[in-house]
Amino acid sequence: MNTKTSKPRSKNQAPKVIGKEKPIILITNDDGISAPGIRNLVESVRDIGKIVVVAPDKPQSGMGHAITIGEPLRLHKTHHFEGIESYSCSGTPVDCVKLAVDKVLHRKPDLCLSGINHGANHSINVIYSGTMSAAVEAAIEDIPSAGFSLLDYSIEADFSGARHYARQVVELMLKTKLGKHTVLNVNIPAKALELLKGIKLCRQAYAKYEENYVQRNDPHGRQYYWLTGEFQNFDKGKDTDVWALANNFVSVVPVQYDLTHTVYLKQLKSKWEK
Amino acid sequence: MNTKTSKPRSKNQAPKVIGKEKPIILITNDDGISAPGIRNLVESVRDIGKIVVVAPDKPQSGMGHAITIGEPLRLHKTHHFEGIESYSCSGTPVDCVKLAVDKVLHRKPDLCLSGINHGANHSINVIYSGTMSAAVEAAIEDIPSAGFSLLDYSIEADFSGARHYARQVVELMLKTKLGKHTVLNVNIPAKALELLKGIKLCRQAYAKYEENYVQRNDPHGRQYYWLTGEFQNFDKGKDTDVWALANNFVSVVPVQYDLTHTVYLKQLKSKWEK
Repeated sequence: MNTKTSKPRSKNQAPKVIGKEKPIILITNDDGISAPGIRNLVESVRDIGKIVVVAPDKPQSGMGHAITIGEPLRLHKTHHFEGIESYSCSGTPVDCVKLAVDKVLHRKPDLCLSGINHGANHSINVIYSGTMSAAVEAAIEDIPSAGFSLLDYSIEADFSGARHYARQVVELMLKTKLGKHTVLNVNIPAKALELLKGIKLCRQAYAKYEENYVQRNDPHGRQYYWLTGEFQNFDKGKDTDVWALANNFVSVVPVQYDLTHTVYLKQLKSKWEK
Repeated sequence: MNTKTSKPRSKNQAPKVIGKEKPIILITNDDGISAPGIRNLVESVRDIGKIVVVAPDKPQSGMGHAITIGEPLRLHKTHHFEGIESYSCSGTPVDCVKLAVDKVLHRKPDLCLSGINHGANHSINVIYSGTMSAAVEAAIEDIPSAGFSLLDYSIEADFSGARHYARQVVELMLKTKLGKHTVLNVNIPAKALELLKGIKLCRQAYAKYEENYVQRNDPHGRQYYWLTGEFQNFDKGKDTDVWALANNFVSVVPVQYDLTHTVYLKQLKSKWEK
């Protein structure tokens, strides 16, 4: 997976003697450019490719696949990562990917990585997650991608296991002939590296949250609501991400963005079209 | 599809003599509670069920599946629709569905409708659309749902064709034994009703946007970017929503939220797990 930035050589030009160029890797996240998680991701793969970071200037958790259309975006060069070209963006994680491709890289990177998220993105979380939506956006734009999430919300989480496996997944991705629409949802248990049992390819567990908004009154007596909820896993399968994580595996779920429900499509065709 | 709000009768209580209760239908959108589109949707189905509206207090287009977690939500009773219980919500379309179920209805409605959106939500738009994400959220919560979109962004669009077909789809949904996770993405061409050829069940076309951010300078000389882009359809299939719409059909795509890419899962299992 070589970069394609080198100019075409004239017929008379000698072939380059240096080896294959490093892949260009775009890195983003949803916790914001200052979060420890993205720093750990950058450090885990910085020698593998030419890294460019474009990440939100503030936390954007739960932003899903939101894009900014009603207001303009700002992009600022930053110095968060020594020796790495990096920018903060006023938009969502998906905005970051779009703007990075169009206005920073001026080409498709070879790979897009998102994270490492502070908190789980297994099962239904994939749909609410800014981390995963950035990765999905990359795949829509023909860029193989992966989102990484550590099952620990703490700002002081131990990322050593996550770093190890993020690097392993990236190496596997670069070694494997991947479809350009590949998106991997990688979750890592919050356990010491030596307790982790390796990578497990999984399907998304059938699970959801049961909402329970907490009602409060402001000092003026007006109600407001805080989102809280309880995670409910209805899936007993041993081939799911939730099972893998509970059993100390690093879960890897390939994700798609063709949302057609083919089973319902067939059923409804037989009922609604004669 | 009866409502389940009636209290259990005591053994001695006479059975009710009235007929089946009307279904409870939750209506939301992403253009905001004041948009003509939601008014047209309410009017098209108001006699079919007990309608409750919970919709954003401002435009929320392009919000995808975003949820509000870092700040609280407000909910206000409104009088936008005569004789209809309605609330405006400070959050995203997905927040509206969650809050409606937990704090307004205190139960699952029988159906959730979203729209009618001012503008297309076919093909890849489904993933960016607040309209469709609200419908998907309902299905995650075991509520069959449909999102409706008219292929006309204008605030003064003619909704007569869209109203006709929204009602027809809702009647079909209520008549059909649907899976509780059913989500339908319904798009209606911006054509006069008599030119529309009826409903066509479709798959999501393989299409995307090629971004082209417009760069401007503010009065202080600082750059900012506006998202613009060109729609690109790579899909020649005659079974897609894009084809159906171009041929004056109302496209109906059943949508799923299990994002597992089963083909890639199988491929990667064979490569990464021995």
